Amino acid sequence: MNDIILIPVEKMKHVFFTVLVKYGFEKQKADECAEIFTINSVDGVYSHSVNRFVSFIKLVENGFIIPNNDPEKVSGMNALEQWDGKMGVGVLNAVKATDRAMQLASNYGMSCVALANTNHWMRGGYYGWHAAKNNFVFIGWTNTIANMPAWGATDARLGNNPLVIAVPYNGQAIVLDMATSQFSYGALEMAKMKGEDLPVHGGFNVKGELTKNPSEILESKRVLPVGYWKGAGLSLLLDILSAILSGGLSTHQITQRKTEYGLSQVFIAIDHKQLKNYKGIEGCIENIISDYRQSIAEAGKEIVFPGERVLKTRERNFKNGVPVMKNLWSEIESLL
Amino acid sequence: MNDIILIPVEKMKHVFFTVLVKYGFEKQKADECAEIFTINSVDGVYSHSVNRFVSFIKLVENGFIIPNNDPEKVSGMNALEQWDGKMGVGVLNAVKATDRAMQLASNYGMSCVALANTNHWMRGGYYGWHAAKNNFVFIGWTNTIANMPAWGATDARLGNNPLVIAVPYNGQAIVLDMATSQFSYGALEMAKMKGEDLPVHGGFNVKGELTKNPSEILESKRVLPVGYWKGAGLSLLLDILSAILSGGLSTHQITQRKTEYGLSQVFIAIDHKQLKNYKGIEGCIENIISDYRQSIAEAGKEIVFPGERVLKTRERNFKNGVPVMKNLWSEIESLL
Repeated sequence: MNDIILIPVEKMKHVFFTVLVKYGFEKQKADECAEIFTINSVDGVYSHSVNRFVSFIKLVENGFIIPNNDPEKVSGMNALEQWDGKMGVGVLNAVKATDRAMQLASNYGMSCVALANTNHWMRGGYYGWHAAKNNFVFIGWTNTIANMPAWGATDARLGNNPLVIAVPYNGQAIVLDMATSQFSYGALEMAKMKGEDLPVHGGFNVKGELTKNPSEILESKRVLPVGYWKGAGLSLLLDILSAILSGGLSTHQITQRKTEYGLSQVFIAIDHKQLKNYKGIEGCIENIISDYRQSIAEAGKEIVFPGERVLKTRERNFKNGVPVMKNLWSEIESLL
Repeated sequence: MNDIILIPVEKMKHVFFTVLVKYGFEKQKADECAEIFTINSVDGVYSHSVNRFVSFIKLVENGFIIPNNDPEKVSGMNALEQWDGKMGVGVLNAVKATDRAMQLASNYGMSCVALANTNHWMRGGYYGWHAAKNNFVFIGWTNTIANMPAWGATDARLGNNPLVIAVPYNGQAIVLDMATSQFSYGALEMAKMKGEDLPVHGGFNVKGELTKNPSEILESKRVLPVGYWKGAGLSLLLDILSAILSGGLSTHQITQRKTEYGLSQVFIAIDHKQLKNYKGIEGCIENIISDYRQSIAEAGKEIVFPGERVLKTRERNFKNGVPVMKNLWSEIESLL
C-alpha cells in the first residue's frame, strides 16, 4: 500500500527548484519551471506535474530536453509566426509562445504562434489559464507520440493530442483541457492501481470489445478516442495543423524517434477586448453560465463548467499541502 | 415504405433555384444558395441539404430568414472582425464570412471573422472545403438552439455546436465536420425509421441508462455529447466563443426564441502558404496520411480520413443523380 503525504507548496517548489538547478537549469529558468510544476500540482493535475517530475528530469539527463535553450522566431507574417523551440523545456517554451501570441493579438486582434522542436507542455490548461488571466481568449493544442489507433484500427498511429480552449471569467477562467482520447494512460494506470473500473468505456480489449476494465486496455493499447470516430478525426487534424503550421514534426515522425521529444504546438490568442461589442462580454458569459447552472441535475450529480473544480482544489492544496504518493516523493527527493 | 428516387444534379439545382426565386430571392442569391444546397446533397450530406430544404423555405416564409439581406461589418481590429448577418441566409452569410476571413488572412497571415444574427449554415463542412480549395487552413464553428444536456443533467441547455477543421490536400481537402453530440437528431430519426440500433451508445433513456436505441433517445431527448463530459465542455466553450466574439446570441438566448434563428458563428482562416517552411507542407500531410493508411485495420473496417468518402459519393451522385425520398421530393416540387 502506498501512503499519501501532504507536501507544503513552498517546500514542493523549493525541492523542484533545487533539483532543476542541480541538473543545469539557469536560476531564473529553474524558478519558472519549478513554479509551473508546483502550480499544476496545486491545481490537482498531478498526472501532468509532480507525478511526471522524475521522468522529466530523466529526459533532461538524456539530452532530450536542453534546459537553457530559448525559442527563436523562424518566420512570420504579421499575426502568424513560426518559432523553433530549440529542444528547450516544454513548459517554458509554451509560456513564451503564449506570451508572444498575446503580444501579437494586441497588435492584430488575434494571432497564431506555431512552435516546432519543443517538448511536452505537461498540463495544457496552464497556458489557457495564463492567457485568460491576462484577459485573452486562448485556443491551443499539441501533438504527441502515437498512443491511440485510428478508428477501425488496432495499432496506435494517432496521438491523443490535447486541445485547450480558455476564456476569462470573473477574474478567473473557464478552461477546457481535453485530450482526444477518452482517458489518459495515467488515468488508466491509476484506475488499475485502485482496482476500479472506468466510469465509461475507455477502449477495446484484445478481442476488440469495448471495455471499462483498465487492465484490458493497458494490455491491448487500444484506447478509445473521444466520440469514437470523431475524436480520431479531431486528433488527425490537430496533428496535421501542428506540423504544417510549425514546420515541425508530426506524430508519425515523433513516433519514429521512440522517445517523445521534439513536439509541434499551436497557440492562438484573441484580444476580444478590442471588439466594439466588448462591453457586454462579462454579462454574456455570466448569462450563459447562469443558465447552465439551472440544468436539472441527476441525483448525486453536480453541474460544473470546465476548470471550475480547480479553484477548490487549489485552495485546499494551498492550505493543507499537495497530496503525493510517499514513494514518489522519496524518489523526487533522491534527486536532490 | 418510402421509395428512393434519383434526381439529376442539374434538375435538383434548377428546382431549388426556381423555388428560391419564387420566395423572393434575388437571382444571384438564389443561384448561389441553390448551388450550395445541391452540392451538399451531391456530397451525401442529405440531412443538411435536400432534406432540410422545405423547413428552410418555411423559415423564409415566416420571416426568420430575410433572403436578400447582406452581412455588414460592425467592428474590426486588423485580423479580427465582427459582422452582423442581418438575419440573412445562413449559407450565403457563411460563405461571405469565409471569404472575408481568407481575405484578411492574406493580409495578416491569419484571421477571425465572427458573425452575429445569422442563420443555420446547414453543412459546416462546406466552408471547410471552400477555404481548403482556396488553399487556406480553416477552423470554424456555430452555436445552435439547445438540444443536448450538460454532463450530469437531464434537460437540454447546450447546443450540439458543430466544429469544422479543414486543410488543403492534394488539390482536394481533409475536412473534419463534427457536431459535439455523438449523433444528430437527423441520424437518430433515420435509425429509428430503419428500425436499427445505433452502432454505439447515442444517449440516455428516460431511466438514465446509456442506450443504442434511437427511439429511447428521441423520447428522453438526452443525446450524448462526444466523449461524455468532454464534448459537453467543448460545446459550452464553443458557444461562449461564438457569443463573445460575434457580440451575438448565445445558445441560451437562441433557445428563448423557441425557433432556431439568429445564430452566432466563428470563421478562422490561416494563410499557411506565407510561412517560410511552406515548401514541405504537401509532403508533410502526405507523410502523415501515408502512415495513417498503414494502420492495421480490423476485419471489414476501412481506414479513411475525415472527408475522404465524400469524393466517391460526389462522383457517384453526379453520375447517377442524388438519392432522395420520393415523398420528400414531391413536397419540394409542390413549392414550385
